Order: sequence, then C-alpha cells, then structure tokens
Amino acid sequence: MLAAYYEGDRRIVVRDVEVRPPGRGEVQLQVAFSGICGTDLHIHDGDMDARVSRPAILGHEMSGTVVALGDGVTQWAVGDAVVVVPLDWCGTCPACVGGNSHICHRLNFIGIDSPGALQNRWNVPQRGLVRIPSGLGLREAALAEPTAVAVHDVRRSELRRGHKALIVGGGPIGLLIAAVVRAYGGDVLVSEPSPDRRQLIARLGMRAIDPTDGLAVAIGDWTAGAGVDVAFEVSGSSAGVDAAIMSLATRGRLALVAIHPRPVPVNLFQFFWRELTLVGARVYERADFEEALTLLNSATIPTDVIISDVVPLSEASTAFDLLHSGRAMKVLVDCNVKK
Amino acid sequence: MLAAYYEGDRRIVVRDVEVRPPGRGEVQLQVAFSGICGTDLHIHDGDMDARVSRPAILGHEMSGTVVALGDGVTQWAVGDAVVVVPLDWCGTCPACVGGNSHICHRLNFIGIDSPGALQNRWNVPQRGLVRIPSGLGLREAALAEPTAVAVHDVRRSELRRGHKALIVGGGPIGLLIAAVVRAYGGDVLVSEPSPDRRQLIARLGMRAIDPTDGLAVAIGDWTAGAGVDVAFEVSGSSAGVDAAIMSLATRGRLALVAIHPRPVPVNLFQFFWRELTLVGARVYERADFEEALTLLNSATIPTDVIISDVVPLSEASTAFDLLHSGRAMKVLVDCNVKK
Repeated sequence: MLAAYYEGDRRIVVRDVEVRPPGRGEVQLQVAFSGICGTDLHIHDGDMDARVSRPAILGHEMSGTVVALGDGVTQWAVGDAVVVVPLDWCGTCPACVGGNSHICHRLNFIGIDSPGALQNRWNVPQRGLVRIPSGLGLREAALAEPTAVAVHDVRRSELRRGHKALIVGGGPIGLLIAAVVRAYGGDVLVSEPSPDRRQLIARLGMRAIDPTDGLAVAIGDWTAGAGVDVAFEVSGSSAGVDAAIMSLATRGRLALVAIHPRPVPVNLFQFFWRELTLVGARVYERADFEEALTLLNSATIPTDVIISDVVPLSEASTAFDLLHSGRAMKVLVDCNVKK
Repeated sequence: MLAAYYEGDRRIVVRDVEVRPPGRGEVQLQVAFSGICGTDLHIHDGDMDARVSRPAILGHEMSGTVVALGDGVTQWAVGDAVVVVPLDWCGTCPACVGGNSHICHRLNFIGIDSPGALQNRWNVPQRGLVRIPSGLGLREAALAEPTAVAVHDVRRSELRRGHKALIVGGGPIGLLIAAVVRAYGGDVLVSEPSPDRRQLIARLGMRAIDPTDGLAVAIGDWTAGAGVDVAFEVSGSSAGVDAAIMSLATRGRLALVAIHPRPVPVNLFQFFWRELTLVGARVYERADFEEALTLLNSATIPTDVIISDVVPLSEASTAFDLLHSGRAMKVLVDCNVKK
C-alpha cells in the first residue's frame, strides 16, 4: 500500500509499504479521504519538530470504510463507513477523571503523536470510530473532524438562537463556525483580511468585512450599539483578540479557538467593566462528532465551497503546496487507491 | 449636619452644612457607618479626578436608619434599618434591557458619580434600599457592600461545594471572598505578599502563602497535581494574573475581580490548551446584597477581623491615612453624630 511520510525539512515522501494487520481492539480502515489542516501545515514547515517524531504519517481529518477487524472487535463489521475521533486518552489523569478526556493531560492525538490517515490502510483503536449516516458521502464526511471543531467551539460559546456572532478569521474553521452558527439560528459577520476569502464568504450569503475597514462602526450599526453576543477568535493574532473583545456586548462571550503560542496583551479592563467571558475551546468530544455528521448530512455545511481541491495520495505533497499558496480553502487527499 | 468633602489634592475637609429634605422618591437616612474602600483611596489620591467632580462627598459602603420620607415613598417607614445598593441605572441601555442594570452603560455609581454616605444625613433613591435583618448590627451591616462584591464574584466563579479556590490578594475583598467561599463549602488558599495580612488570614483558620515562595508547588501538593477549580484575581498585578492562570485545573474558572487599567500580557495558550474560562465580575446585583446580609447575619463573615478601625466623621481624613499606612484592613467612619 501507499503511505505519505513527513520526513522533516518540508519533505513529504510517498512510499510503498507492507500492510500490517490490525492489533487487538483495532479496526483496519480503507481510508477514503484525508483533509490537511493548519496544524499539518505547521508540522510540514518544521514548527512542531520538537513534538512530532519522523518519519511521521500525518492526517487526522478523514473518512473511510472498515476492511478488517482485530481481535475483540465486535461492534463493527467489514463495509461500515466511518470517521475517526483521532483522540486517544489515558483515562486516569485529572482531566479524564473529571469527564474531559478530550483534553487528557497525556493525550495521544492520532495523526500527530501517532500514525495518521495519509495512507491506504489505517489501523485505529475501535473506540474512536463514529458511523457515517447513510446518505452522507465519504468526500463530505471527511469534513467531520473540522466540523466537530466548529461544533465544539459554538457549544463552548453558548450561542443561542437569535444571537449575533463575530467570527475573526475566515479560513476553513472560521467558515465552518459561521455555518454552524447559522444552522443554530445565529447571525454572523466574518472579519477577514483576504479579499478572495471575503468574496467566497459572500457567495455563501454571509457578510464579510475587512478588519482594517471600520469593523467597530460596522458592529455598532449591526447591533444598534449593543455589541455582539458572541465572538470567535480564529485568527491567532493580537489584533484579532482586541477586535473580538471590543466587539462584544455587556456579558458577551469570547470563544478562543486559535492558538496563541506567546502571551498576548489583553484588555482585561473590558472583561471587568462589561463582565465579559473568555472561554478556551480545544478539539471536540464524541458528541461534537456525532452532531457534525448530522449537520453535514442535513446539507447545512457548504462542503462544496469549503473543499477547494482534491489530490491523489501519490501526490500528497501537492496538498501542502496548495495550502501554502493561500488560494486553497480545504484540500482533501484521495487515499482510496487500490494497490 | 457634618459632611466630609474630597476637595482634590488628597484633601478631605469636614464642613457643617444644611440638611436638605429628601426629594420625590427619595428617602433620607441617618448614616450610621460608612466604610472606605480602595476606590475611595484612588479618588483621594487624585487618580480618578477625570471622573469625580469636586468637591465630592464620597462613601458607598454604609448602614443607616430611615429618618424622613420624600413624596411617593410608601414602602419604607421612619426607623427602618437599611443599607443602600449604590447603583442608579438608566433602564434603557442594552445592558439594562438585557437584565444587567448593575453594569448599565450610563451607570451613576452613588458615592463616586453623585454624593455618597460620608455625611450625617443622606438622601437616596428608594429603589436602592435593602432592609437589614433583625439581629444584625449597624456596624456589621456596613460591610454589606463589600460582602455583596464578594458574593457576586463567587457567584460569577460558579464555585460549588467541595471546590478548591485560590484567592490572589488577601486585602478586604480577598478576605471576604475567602469567607464566602468557605461559607459555600469551598476550600481556600490565599496568596498574599504581606506577612501581617498572612498572619491575620491564618488567625481565621485559612491558609495563606507568600506568592514568591513556591505557590505552584503548594497548589500541586494541595490538589494532587490537578490544579484549583476556581481562582480569583484580586491583586491587580500582572504576576497575579499569571499565578491565577497557572494554578487552574483543566476547565477551571478565573474570576477577574481587580481592575487592570492597562492591557496585561495573558498566556492565552493555557486558556486554549486546558479550556479555561476567564470571567469578569463587577459590583453586584440586588440579590447579592440580600445574600450578603444573610451571610453577615449568620456570623459567617469575620467582621471583627475585617473591621480594623473606626474613626468619627469629624476626623474622616484619618481613615484615608490609616489605609495609606498599609496596616488597616477595613476602616469604618462613624457618621452617627448628632448635630
């Protein structure tokens, strides 16, 4: 079979390797599609070499079909169409004991800390599998993971029907958050500096604004001076944090989605003065995956706009090049190659 | 009657003035005690001259007795012992309409933005009055306002029975928060640099620690490596914000009580990674005052330790001197002078 390896130094090499049988409690999947995300791009660029051992098979956004069962697997059958929650937790740390195994202190993020889906056949622990609803294609189902991120973010934001939400950053996650907010009856405004992305957002019937072009005035007009109920910081920039804070209404909630590797100056006075809330949101729980699949199956998520490119596994490195160009939104790798 | 005026430039002048009758909807109180808080000290020091018009009668933490009724006042009688919620709100701004009149966009904070309680007789809008339960003395009731602050902070923190709470800063508000947490079945650790204050906290049977002396290790030992459920930032320092963040368990909540006038570098990565929540807490709602009076009446609040000094109204400036010395905890001004 084929597998794509990150070998360091921005190199992705596709090699022909032996298929290993699934271990006890594992299921072997024929991977259909595997998406590439911003974290994969960071890994590819060497930013996470301290964490990622090489050679590494990346890929944690995927869809596929069960092709073999390891010992002790009873709830799955060959032919089942599934996605995988790529989290493997310890079950004993304070986070796990407290019911937050998705942010386990010793989390194994499958596809980053252990081999991922950029291969024809993938052996995964059965507990991560989630069934794809009938009617949902494998291509669309490959968006389950980033959609689950968006569902989790929106859940953490406590958005309710009728709320107004500012989304700072209109990349794939920002767009998915916007789609989920809309599915839940919220109204969205996306702040995004790229004119191409703003155009794409407008095609979805959503309002996008250049953050350098009177965002505060636009928020004021939109909310009759009250500010937004919920803001999502998806940009990873200090200016984005500021914009999100200043856009919020009294008692508004800011969901922190992006990674800020270094401390950022935060206007804490506003948190005090307007009793704002900042809430961190990381990955997802199983329920978020199930909800993501339901939303994808109801055609609420504009998968056709979000999936901008599909490349074959044999040309996996092209996927990273496309993302680097800034012209792609979500790039899927087609792993369904018979070998 | 006597009234103490802030005249700018750290000057408090007590003068003999005419008693004005209460206006329509107002109640006239004979003020019993009025406490001086950190904000009053900031005003005294000129830090808030842009907001506070001079001469100003300060004082917003008080207890007193109804002595006269303005037109249209039907629910109060001469002789009623009361405290005052010193907030006057517009009723029409987005905060008020949204049910958060305590942080009204046009809030008149009585005692800062309009005349306060440092006088023998005080005319206040009737809607701010809260009845002092029988059995609670006027001296202890004068702590209703700062206790309401603490109740509001603890409510915003969503502390539950059995939770462990770190309180960063052991001044009057930190101590009151600690007392409220304990009343609600939480366990407290107070981080406080002053040895005198640490000794005082220890006298209350609470644990206090020098923040420069292994706070992280102490938190680790106390919580078996998990971190605290709730932290209160009452210090107003950047180091305090850091300490509070690093002490928190996965999904922990940080209540931001102190005022940080300038942006502070915040480790947002930890908010993402451990899904922490930061929640601003400002003043109180009426229910917080009622709860504060209930707690004070149940002797849950160590009023004898918190009230360190009582000075007569004629020597009001002494109260500010005592606070400046750093040796006082809560200074009350006795306004019950017959004139």
